[in-house]
Amino acid sequence: MPDRLSWAEIRRLALRHKKALILANLVAVLATLCSVPIPLLLPLLVDEVLLHDGDAALKVMDNFLPADWETAAGYIGLMLLLTLLLRGSALIFNVLQARLFARLSKDIVYRIRMRLIERLKRISLGEYESLGGGTVTTHLVTDLDTLDKFVGETLSRFLVAILTLVGTSAILIWMHWQLALLILLFNPLVIYATVLLGKKVKHLKKLENDSTSRFTQALTETLEAIQEVRAGNRQGYFLGRLGGRAREVRDYAVASQWKSDASNRASGLLFQFGIDVFRAAAMLTVLFS
Amino acid sequence: MPDRLSWAEIRRLALRHKKALILANLVAVLATLCSVPIPLLLPLLVDEVLLHDGDAALKVMDNFLPADWETAAGYIGLMLLLTLLLRGSALIFNVLQARLFARLSKDIVYRIRMRLIERLKRISLGEYESLGGGTVTTHLVTDLDTLDKFVGETLSRFLVAILTLVGTSAILIWMHWQLALLILLFNPLVIYATVLLGKKVKHLKKLENDSTSRFTQALTETLEAIQEVRAGNRQGYFLGRLGGRAREVRDYAVASQWKSDASNRASGLLFQFGIDVFRAAAMLTVLFS
Repeated sequence: MPDRLSWAEIRRLALRHKKALILANLVAVLATLCSVPIPLLLPLLVDEVLLHDGDAALKVMDNFLPADWETAAGYIGLMLLLTLLLRGSALIFNVLQARLFARLSKDIVYRIRMRLIERLKRISLGEYESLGGGTVTTHLVTDLDTLDKFVGETLSRFLVAILTLVGTSAILIWMHWQLALLILLFNPLVIYATVLLGKKVKHLKKLENDSTSRFTQALTETLEAIQEVRAGNRQGYFLGRLGGRAREVRDYAVASQWKSDASNRASGLLFQFGIDVFRAAAMLTVLFS
Repeated sequence: MPDRLSWAEIRRLALRHKKALILANLVAVLATLCSVPIPLLLPLLVDEVLLHDGDAALKVMDNFLPADWETAAGYIGLMLLLTLLLRGSALIFNVLQARLFARLSKDIVYRIRMRLIERLKRISLGEYESLGGGTVTTHLVTDLDTLDKFVGETLSRFLVAILTLVGTSAILIWMHWQLALLILLFNPLVIYATVLLGKKVKHLKKLENDSTSRFTQALTETLEAIQEVRAGNRQGYFLGRLGGRAREVRDYAVASQWKSDASNRASGLLFQFGIDVFRAAAMLTVLFS
């Protein structure tokens, strides 16, 4: 067994659930497909029923409605029913997806935790003494929670994000391929900026977890020796040290939280602004064509 | 000092930062005000520049543009600049907001943690022995993390959510007051359903944290006694017990995650469907008026 936990190892653990992974991604795609058309349905009726602009949707609905229901109220009612059905199916698929992905990511974390526990068998006592029980506890609880969140989000968003990207690109190219190329070439720039920003903040979560680890370590030591601490009336010293560690946890957690948020928002802004430029350029091409 | 941590106590801790709380909420409102008009700006130009439908925005822009820039390209360029400015300000306000709220919520959690540490002074040794060091550690680390997430989200969303609700209600009533009343009366029903669903899942996070607590406790005991465990060759028993606890953590975490997600989505569905019914009813009133 290798001694370091690598991404390849995590991928290997994920691929052990190949069937569940495929099923979960399939369900995620179905959920997305159900939710994409929902906001378009009622506005379509506004065009066709209220403004009498086109009748494609009405013709489709005529196949399902009895002749004397083919009125505005009938169309609106049927569309409402369809919206409810789609929303319901999206809900069911989303819940199923959440359940499948939760099982997957928690199982991966469980297996990593078991691996770490197995290593307790082989770790030398000297190494353990120098680490301290609190640090080991943090690795097995706090650090794995961080990993858990990351694995869960990555697994569940990967395929849907790629398909959305492909779908949006296809529609853009179909609308106006020159502009589409411009925006698609702009994207690698956004990704590059995101990676740069990510590098700036990625150590912050580690600093936060490390401070939690030092706090847990101080706490464990205090608790282990609580009888002696009480007897020797050294509570002031030990509790003061705990307070200092708790303050460290707070400060690192604040920095990690707002700086990661800022970096996410900054790369989102770049991406959004690329879309704005695309829309403005599209308007200009309409004007000058 | 009261012995139980109540919501009143948490509110009292939050109100100790009254100035920061007011400032943070003000910044949050500014951030929302900056982001609301952004998606409306370019479509407005589509109406006025491409379709020649109205010229209110163009007249406003004429005040800022030199005479020979008052062309379609000039308008589009200015609007693009305005969009970028608004996005930039929204980003700055959002980051500032995230920073202020992160500081607030982490400080509240820090103060609660300090209170719990203070209590270690007064806890009887018998009580401590029966709880176990791992359980105390979990209260001070995992449980407070859960509280942290909740406090952070509640603090930062409360005012903006209320203002959004008031604003949306005002616009609805202005559009069609009879229908608006219908949807506003429907809302308490959604809230009631959300509360019911919330009650069903709220104990799941507690079960998850309790299982983490049992795992930490087993881990701490194993680590404390690792020399004896090694010497007595009882590693199998102790590591097996740890594995069992880790499996429990996994199972409770899976249940807590997907069921909370399902309950959130279900109440979102109800709310969304209320809006769908409102829009369908609005179309019918347009037809029959």
